[in-house]
Amino acid sequence: MTLVKAYAAQKADKPLEPYQLTRREPGADDVEIKILYCGVCHSDIHTARNEWGGTMYPTVPGHEIVGKVSRVGGNVTRFKVGDTVGVGCFVDSCGHCNNCKDHQEQYCENGHTQTYNSFEQDKKTITYGGYSTHIVVTQGFVLNISDKLPLEKVAPLLCAGITTYSPLKYWGVKKGDKLAVVGLGGLGHMAVKIASSMGAEVTMLSRSPGKAKDAEELGAHHFALTTDKEKMKELANSFDFIIDTVSAEHDYNEYLALLGTNGVMILLGVPPTPSDVQAFHLIFGRRSLVGSLVGGIKETQEMLDYCAEHNITSDVEMIRMDQINEAYERTLKGDVHYRFVIDMASID
Amino acid sequence: MTLVKAYAAQKADKPLEPYQLTRREPGADDVEIKILYCGVCHSDIHTARNEWGGTMYPTVPGHEIVGKVSRVGGNVTRFKVGDTVGVGCFVDSCGHCNNCKDHQEQYCENGHTQTYNSFEQDKKTITYGGYSTHIVVTQGFVLNISDKLPLEKVAPLLCAGITTYSPLKYWGVKKGDKLAVVGLGGLGHMAVKIASSMGAEVTMLSRSPGKAKDAEELGAHHFALTTDKEKMKELANSFDFIIDTVSAEHDYNEYLALLGTNGVMILLGVPPTPSDVQAFHLIFGRRSLVGSLVGGIKETQEMLDYCAEHNITSDVEMIRMDQINEAYERTLKGDVHYRFVIDMASID
Repeated sequence: MTLVKAYAAQKADKPLEPYQLTRREPGADDVEIKILYCGVCHSDIHTARNEWGGTMYPTVPGHEIVGKVSRVGGNVTRFKVGDTVGVGCFVDSCGHCNNCKDHQEQYCENGHTQTYNSFEQDKKTITYGGYSTHIVVTQGFVLNISDKLPLEKVAPLLCAGITTYSPLKYWGVKKGDKLAVVGLGGLGHMAVKIASSMGAEVTMLSRSPGKAKDAEELGAHHFALTTDKEKMKELANSFDFIIDTVSAEHDYNEYLALLGTNGVMILLGVPPTPSDVQAFHLIFGRRSLVGSLVGGIKETQEMLDYCAEHNITSDVEMIRMDQINEAYERTLKGDVHYRFVIDMASID
Repeated sequence: MTLVKAYAAQKADKPLEPYQLTRREPGADDVEIKILYCGVCHSDIHTARNEWGGTMYPTVPGHEIVGKVSRVGGNVTRFKVGDTVGVGCFVDSCGHCNNCKDHQEQYCENGHTQTYNSFEQDKKTITYGGYSTHIVVTQGFVLNISDKLPLEKVAPLLCAGITTYSPLKYWGVKKGDKLAVVGLGGLGHMAVKIASSMGAEVTMLSRSPGKAKDAEELGAHHFALTTDKEKMKELANSFDFIIDTVSAEHDYNEYLALLGTNGVMILLGVPPTPSDVQAFHLIFGRRSLVGSLVGGIKETQEMLDYCAEHNITSDVEMIRMDQINEAYERTLKGDVHYRFVIDMASID
């Protein structure tokens, strides 16, 4: 066992603070990673504050991890000490259910192991995330990271990147498709970048006129104010896809009406309460309302390679580890362009 | 102009009664049809009683029409007098939008012409449906009907048949797929028959134990009571498809939880109020909630040919035209196995 420095929430209503964490010694199939950067995802806040229930304290969040291999187990062939690697939202799964065999570990029928606040496959050892100096992960769940791109900007790809890339691939977004993005945060800004890189004609839908310039800079081709009723009428039946990244309560029907025939609205955010859906919005136009959860390991590697090839990274704001509580507050206010990333060297 | 006998609703709160209807003389592209049978669809009741708003009185419902060609216009080559033909939910469309060119006239971007309570493409002439002795329809919207099957049982295929067949084809239901049907009425009984003919393993989901035997007779492989909480838990994550034919208020989430990974729940009924949807039901498992509206003319012909080949018809109860108001009441109570069909000879 190795003692490593970390930051943990001890209770739902307490700020995160320094914590000493025990990591296992690398087993034969394990990779130990010295963490360089860890992105700050909204899920981290939900978990630290027990907003989804089920938080096991103390909890160490963080699932957008980039670092260097520091030790490897005897069976590890794909990685060697010094390699640049990443870890995303989960670190293990059963490996034998239909979804695991189909490289869809995110939908593991026996329950995958999330990177933090989850159980290892032994169903008793709790996992701790990337707000720490090291993590030990079984090699099948470690990703190769190209050194071509700035690593701190790559970290958010491990969650925000794959969460947007996977549905774009699954539903076959292609050149010329008209695609709208709702919500310009960590997920939304990656959706704009990746969808436009795939050749889609991207429209940013927002309630804030101030986001027009930001959206354009990220690669959106159009911007539309959802409070502009005339504009919304004009856009009715016009999109092939809508990527909805909003986690706050909102009206799905307003957006469904903007989909053309066979259009697909993809939910990536989980609002705290259910949302109304009017069946006729789906029936007239054969529209789909769907959801998607991150992506499998194979697809995450594909996404990382794709982003390296297409020069796609997250827009980030670097913070020190001791700024995490302030970063949470600013994230909740949407005051970040577009992802905080912790420089893990600052923990010392 | 030809005067024909019909039954019409004169007001939302009045029973249907005899009415004299003017049909146009067949134009060069028109087919005049002597109606033999017309099915009674729930939409007929909604329209007669103005439950969806917008009913133009007097209104003559009926869009599950089977009859014999009685006259043809000079340009009509596909049909001759005496042919057995059908007419479904719509009788014209713009013909030049993307959806029409793609044989998806049901989603005509400029508005298709419904068989009743709609406007012809001149946008001023009101249409009247199949509760009458004759109808005149442009040839492109007339279907060929095989004489192999009992024609009165074929009539409901023109709406209930295509409404269930089209989504099964669009979403690629195939041999071995696990499919549940919710609601055992006109649509539901066709969904059971057609899905099982395609090789799907069909489960009927119902709140009424009394429907178990009926479902089995129609070809369902399994029956499950939705009020049985233990059974519902057992069926969680188990279906590839759910066909939801219910038009009454109900909880979509209860059914979404029964879908497996990548499962698709297809809405065919329009409840009077919106239904709650919890995003996590869609996100965890990448599930889809979709809708579908009847089917295009080309696909309707394909469905009719498929049903003739596979010996699929609707289970019907024949009524005289003057029993229509009683039939409406019994339809509303679900007291029909499974579709009333009017013997149009009885109008005289």
